[in-house]
Amino acid sequence: MKIAFLLYPGFTALDIVGPFDVLCRLPGADATFVGKQATAYPNDNQRLTMVAAKALAEVPDPDVVVVPGGTEGTRAAARDPEILDWLRAAHEHTRWTTSVCTGSLILAGAGLLEGAPATTHWAAAGELEKLGASYRPERWVRSGRLVTAAGVSAGIDMALWLAAQIAGDLGAQAIQLGIEYDPAPPFDSGSLAKASPEVRELVASVFG
Amino acid sequence: MKIAFLLYPGFTALDIVGPFDVLCRLPGADATFVGKQATAYPNDNQRLTMVAAKALAEVPDPDVVVVPGGTEGTRAAARDPEILDWLRAAHEHTRWTTSVCTGSLILAGAGLLEGAPATTHWAAAGELEKLGASYRPERWVRSGRLVTAAGVSAGIDMALWLAAQIAGDLGAQAIQLGIEYDPAPPFDSGSLAKASPEVRELVASVFG
Repeated sequence: MKIAFLLYPGFTALDIVGPFDVLCRLPGADATFVGKQATAYPNDNQRLTMVAAKALAEVPDPDVVVVPGGTEGTRAAARDPEILDWLRAAHEHTRWTTSVCTGSLILAGAGLLEGAPATTHWAAAGELEKLGASYRPERWVRSGRLVTAAGVSAGIDMALWLAAQIAGDLGAQAIQLGIEYDPAPPFDSGSLAKASPEVRELVASVFG
Repeated sequence: MKIAFLLYPGFTALDIVGPFDVLCRLPGADATFVGKQATAYPNDNQRLTMVAAKALAEVPDPDVVVVPGGTEGTRAAARDPEILDWLRAAHEHTRWTTSVCTGSLILAGAGLLEGAPATTHWAAAGELEKLGASYRPERWVRSGRLVTAAGVSAGIDMALWLAAQIAGDLGAQAIQLGIEYDPAPPFDSGSLAKASPEVRELVASVFG
């Protein structure tokens, strides 16, 4: 089972590494990072660099695709013909085409989410709707073979769900125990509904 | 505030990227991936490659150090004089010296956890004790300026706690909302205590 993890300049690292460290542990998984070129890509704040082992053209037929979000680079990727053509062609025969955070803007840019229920980072809901998708404020949303996850860490939840679809509940639960994914955040302000007005205001000033 | 994220051959990616995507968002954070050489390092299953921007010798005085775990490569790092010397020297003036998963074996290898309460991946508890630490089955354990986190995803929880120590609760909560860290795993088998006997047996056969 070929799993392609997309890299592009400006991706958010946790968006892609979360699902990677779940899905690469599936029996028979052939996990590969791909990019327009097989080269190194900087993340959203240029402090982290990851390497795409293969160019898009070398992986035309993945069984699973995972698209991470990010900031400006994500919007550029969502208008990049080479990335969008690859996604459209790959999606014709994937078992699952997935995104994390604003990665859904790239799937939408490829026309894959037209009229479909989908999710994204909470600050990008309007942007996703403008690209034709129907935003849902959920942790992850399935629409046929398409699965979109909400902001950053929701990718881990989505990947576990996906692992269960592929390898059964027992397989997914074994991966969860293996990576000890037993979250216990010290605070409970990970969503707009739960965060205090002060926290929401502070974050709004960043996401403008 | 200089934050050094250690890379070595065989690191587990989510161990280091989880804390990175929290801590790099702290105001004034100067986040850098470091390694014995400023070069590319493969992860535990050789399917992912990350780049160390600087060699250890170039970052002698970090304020915060984060050490990831892994498999065989972690045990090699825990006996590598160059890495251990750097850790010991850096720890003399860090504000926080931290690890995720079996990264605590490397801190223990450097002699930093002698007699100290600490945690690690559940399957490495005995190994950690043999290296002189006093194992605690908790998500993260503080001992002075040392903080060790349990398996893989506990690093995100630990990093949020650390962010609060550095920037206050409001700052940490803003980061949590920014990355939408509002975990809702589809299963509840992320710890030995919660996983079913079948799941524990399956995973034991892997970690055996």
